[in-house]
Amino acid sequence: MRTSEGFVPGLDGVIAARTEISFLDVDREKIVIRGEDLIALAKDKTYFDVVHLLLEGYIPSQEEKSSLEDNIKGYYSLPEDTLPVFNLLPKGMHPMDGMRTVISLLAGYDTDLENRSNKENKQRAYELLGQLPFITVNSYFATEGKAIASSDESLGYSANFLYMITGKKPSNLEVEIFDQLLLLYSEHEMPNSTFASRVIASTNADMYGALTGAISSLKGHLHGGANEAVMYMLQEVDSVDGFEALIRHKLQNKEKIMGFGHRVYMKKMDPRATITKEALRKLCERDNDDTLLKMCEAGEEIMREEKGLYPNLDYYAAPVYWKLGIPIPLYTPIFFSARTAGLAAHIIEQHDNNRIFRPRVEYTGKSY
Amino acid sequence: MRTSEGFVPGLDGVIAARTEISFLDVDREKIVIRGEDLIALAKDKTYFDVVHLLLEGYIPSQEEKSSLEDNIKGYYSLPEDTLPVFNLLPKGMHPMDGMRTVISLLAGYDTDLENRSNKENKQRAYELLGQLPFITVNSYFATEGKAIASSDESLGYSANFLYMITGKKPSNLEVEIFDQLLLLYSEHEMPNSTFASRVIASTNADMYGALTGAISSLKGHLHGGANEAVMYMLQEVDSVDGFEALIRHKLQNKEKIMGFGHRVYMKKMDPRATITKEALRKLCERDNDDTLLKMCEAGEEIMREEKGLYPNLDYYAAPVYWKLGIPIPLYTPIFFSARTAGLAAHIIEQHDNNRIFRPRVEYTGKSY
Repeated sequence: MRTSEGFVPGLDGVIAARTEISFLDVDREKIVIRGEDLIALAKDKTYFDVVHLLLEGYIPSQEEKSSLEDNIKGYYSLPEDTLPVFNLLPKGMHPMDGMRTVISLLAGYDTDLENRSNKENKQRAYELLGQLPFITVNSYFATEGKAIASSDESLGYSANFLYMITGKKPSNLEVEIFDQLLLLYSEHEMPNSTFASRVIASTNADMYGALTGAISSLKGHLHGGANEAVMYMLQEVDSVDGFEALIRHKLQNKEKIMGFGHRVYMKKMDPRATITKEALRKLCERDNDDTLLKMCEAGEEIMREEKGLYPNLDYYAAPVYWKLGIPIPLYTPIFFSARTAGLAAHIIEQHDNNRIFRPRVEYTGKSY
Repeated sequence: MRTSEGFVPGLDGVIAARTEISFLDVDREKIVIRGEDLIALAKDKTYFDVVHLLLEGYIPSQEEKSSLEDNIKGYYSLPEDTLPVFNLLPKGMHPMDGMRTVISLLAGYDTDLENRSNKENKQRAYELLGQLPFITVNSYFATEGKAIASSDESLGYSANFLYMITGKKPSNLEVEIFDQLLLLYSEHEMPNSTFASRVIASTNADMYGALTGAISSLKGHLHGGANEAVMYMLQEVDSVDGFEALIRHKLQNKEKIMGFGHRVYMKKMDPRATITKEALRKLCERDNDDTLLKMCEAGEEIMREEKGLYPNLDYYAAPVYWKLGIPIPLYTPIFFSARTAGLAAHIIEQHDNNRIFRPRVEYTGKSY
């Protein structure tokens, strides 16, 4: 019992799991994924290299990756019987809540649901990853009252995902940048959603259950919702001067500015933000209009000077999504979709070597 | 940072929250709920006394309780538009997965979903508690391929719940015992499902999200599923001798026997089991057949002698459910339904005084 040592709000700094999957090495400024540096991977690997790394433990050969991608194309759609669920998602429902409902329902269609073997869990993860673009995009369309979009199996994973969102065949640059975003969002040690999924999985609950918990967590305003909040803020104005004034005004009113700071990185820049900032630069070049980049840079400078805070991944990811033509309510759903690779790896690791999470409390209520 | 202090698997004994709601005082053998002793409450109060205690902080007057019960009758049914979801739950789906799907969907019908005020959260909890018998029973019926059951608003909460399950107007004894079970399952400090819901709520996620996480957790075999496992074990045989032989056989094969032991109580009897054992005795008297009681007592004795383990709530709750005519796959859903009172109190407390859960890990993976 460590109860005498007292209570640490939010378990800040408390080690909640042993993991071979990932580690934020703040001192060496590295996001380590199974021994690899995520930032290095972002520069010359694709999302599916990292999916394979997360689930199989190593970066695949070109053949292994192709075979995995082909395999996953078989799951681009959902079982026919589940499709009416999209009609039940009411207009105005948050697409994260829609996705949660659909994934929850899919548990009923898993014919080997009680199988927690490493092999079956991995297969389940690949099927879900295949289905996620369909679930993500159509949860959004359904809650917007729009028709369901179909997958295009002639396209690669990221190209099809982007195509389903925009309805247009994306350019190579767009696919490359979108794929890089999926890669950057794929895994990040033990944020709340990963912790929630491991806590749930530790009762021997299945992957669908652990993932619905993670969606619920990621939807929270203090977690995955930050990228959407950043874009809504950028949309409020249309010039560098306007954005500077907005940020200063919010600081004066002591409003929280989303997209800055991180529990773990604290006083350093999120290394992933450097990559997304570069992606934003490329998209601004494509459009011959660097307003959005300049706005973001101005905000970054004010926050560093005034608050000593640095951008996190969400800050530059938001305008990149925007430039890719992705509707704002899809930002968090895409984050979840990408993160499912890491979540699945954590759920599998928890199942493979489990101890149920059951902490204690400090009782501060009425005496007895 | 407490990372240097090392890793405690399952956060065993680690204090994860400060709470005014409840505390397992093992030394004094008390389950404390807002200063009251749950076992004393079980003897002369009803489920709704404890619901009010959990959510409002004190035991209601008779008038306050009647008014609360009347108020809740207004939520015995679900919004009409959501009802087709039951048709989408495939036959053979676990009713817990069905409930999770329905509750996830209900988030889309909450017209003030982003409101996290204490008042609105309480109102949301009361509505959900009102809806839960309908959700619970019909998630089971739907996954059995049976027709949806309707509520009977002329009945009290527990009577209607039991009526919906069995289709028969229950006797006073049956209502009393079922209500007592709901009360006993209503709250229990920080088991995995409560922890999962607080972890999720700490991102400022809404109550539906936190509850879907709790359902997923509670479905896990190491958590809420234990009461079902106990009954399946009792069903395997039909005599005291047969049950003794079964338990000894399982012990020899080093199989886990469900319904015994508890992370917190360890070497003491779960005080709730004493109450449910008494309820089983009453139902055996009613039937002039004490076989089930004698079987359970024999199992209790073997486990104490051979393993030094004591029955937990689930061990005697399972045969009580059975004697009430409740189908086994409903045991865990009813547990969740009852526990929603406590879960809602924890979610509200987390929203009212929040720090996001974000622990760290010990990295044991490939070097870098």
